[in-house]
Amino acid sequence: MSISLIKSHKNFDGLTSFYQHESSATKTTMRFSTFIPEGEIKNAIIWLSGLTCTEENFISKSGIQAILKDSDTMIICPDTSPRGLQLAGEHDSYDFGSGAGFYLNATTDGYRDHYNMYDYIVSELTDILKTEFSVANYSIMGHSMGGHGALVLGLKNPQLFKSVSAFSPIVNPTQCPWGQKAFAGYLGSENEANWSSYDATEIIKAGGARGDAILIDQGLDDEFLQEQLLTQNFSEACEKHGQKIELNYREGYDHSYYFIATFLKEHIELHLKSF
Amino acid sequence: MSISLIKSHKNFDGLTSFYQHESSATKTTMRFSTFIPEGEIKNAIIWLSGLTCTEENFISKSGIQAILKDSDTMIICPDTSPRGLQLAGEHDSYDFGSGAGFYLNATTDGYRDHYNMYDYIVSELTDILKTEFSVANYSIMGHSMGGHGALVLGLKNPQLFKSVSAFSPIVNPTQCPWGQKAFAGYLGSENEANWSSYDATEIIKAGGARGDAILIDQGLDDEFLQEQLLTQNFSEACEKHGQKIELNYREGYDHSYYFIATFLKEHIELHLKSF
Repeated sequence: MSISLIKSHKNFDGLTSFYQHESSATKTTMRFSTFIPEGEIKNAIIWLSGLTCTEENFISKSGIQAILKDSDTMIICPDTSPRGLQLAGEHDSYDFGSGAGFYLNATTDGYRDHYNMYDYIVSELTDILKTEFSVANYSIMGHSMGGHGALVLGLKNPQLFKSVSAFSPIVNPTQCPWGQKAFAGYLGSENEANWSSYDATEIIKAGGARGDAILIDQGLDDEFLQEQLLTQNFSEACEKHGQKIELNYREGYDHSYYFIATFLKEHIELHLKSF
Repeated sequence: MSISLIKSHKNFDGLTSFYQHESSATKTTMRFSTFIPEGEIKNAIIWLSGLTCTEENFISKSGIQAILKDSDTMIICPDTSPRGLQLAGEHDSYDFGSGAGFYLNATTDGYRDHYNMYDYIVSELTDILKTEFSVANYSIMGHSMGGHGALVLGLKNPQLFKSVSAFSPIVNPTQCPWGQKAFAGYLGSENEANWSSYDATEIIKAGGARGDAILIDQGLDDEFLQEQLLTQNFSEACEKHGQKIELNYREGYDHSYYFIATFLKEHIELHLKSF
């Protein structure tokens, strides 16, 4: 495994950088961005972005550098899907295929050879963090589809990720149009029983849990709240099954990066405390 | 005059918004963005962006909202040129025409009817700030081409703008390729004598000055420093003619928004102090 630097920008005395590497999980060239503060680094927060995003959205729009600049913690932001392929239906819509990997391992024809974003994040990216960046501790967070990713990966790997948080996550993908479309395409309509293993609410219902509290921020003016995000379903399942959460509904806030930027510092404080 | 709201995002308890209006200076529909913190607003900082930018770059990438959130000061970010026209040569290159208005009043055929970004900022936008946002004090800052704009507008209107600062400004446009191309296209090759009235270094040489110090940050790894920005020319003219400047050369920093974000807080502190 080797990663190559695409470009680097000095930023708050540290470096905001963009890398690419050949991925064994996706069998494509994958890209990610990082911000690494000046000084020795011990920990990494993995940020998972939402639909249509690349490795650039969060690192250029969130203001994360001003928050992490004096810490011993880097952030790494992978792309949201494999790129450069021409699978059937892969580029036809914003909510499936390229830019919409949904952080799972696909099982359908064509997609199963490449769309393994679950393995990519859980195994390959953490390995890169260890070998290339000498990082010992990881946590995970994300937004929307990436919030779904953070919850699912964090619940399935409670030892690997020291803390989990999410902005506007898709908490119950088997019950919303975005999730149903993606899961049908990546996992097959005939395999609905398997879908629940990538659904945070279903994982909680099946007894999955973390010892620490999961932090979630959700805007009340989020246009996707009622139809796609279904925050309440996760909240109810957590209450019933004993998973601690801190769920903040934010009046007047929408689904945008302006919302994320507003409450990002509180999320980062949780992650830094967990290391 | 009336402005209409395109969209608004709640952000650090305030609002990041996008507006459009019919401009008398450009005879086109112009757009601008704002961030208005919660509470009463007394002052406005005008941000002028660089080549290829729109009203969105700075407001989405700089982290300005986290800095202004507890102040009584808004920021307003106009687009960098008129839009929606089809003038000869207007859309052929990134450094002339659309996205490259250079904050002057054009005199050449076609352009003189619309490319009046000087009047647009100095008269029309400040009028909008007064009548639509009830703001009493203004200051001005910008980046690259917008740094040129901030210096020129600030030097020509020392009473109107309470303070001036710039990141990576084009300080001597009559002596660099970007400026020469733009001034030839907007002001005419036969009118080189008029060019100096839009050149910050020439304005200083001709006796123009402000009583306060101008703040400039310039990255030493900026790829445009030697050929286009010519920072030294302005610095020497200011020293010779008694204009106070605080010029910070920043080792390792480039021309990007990652550079701007790093030192933005220091610039904003200067502006807030001037009101």
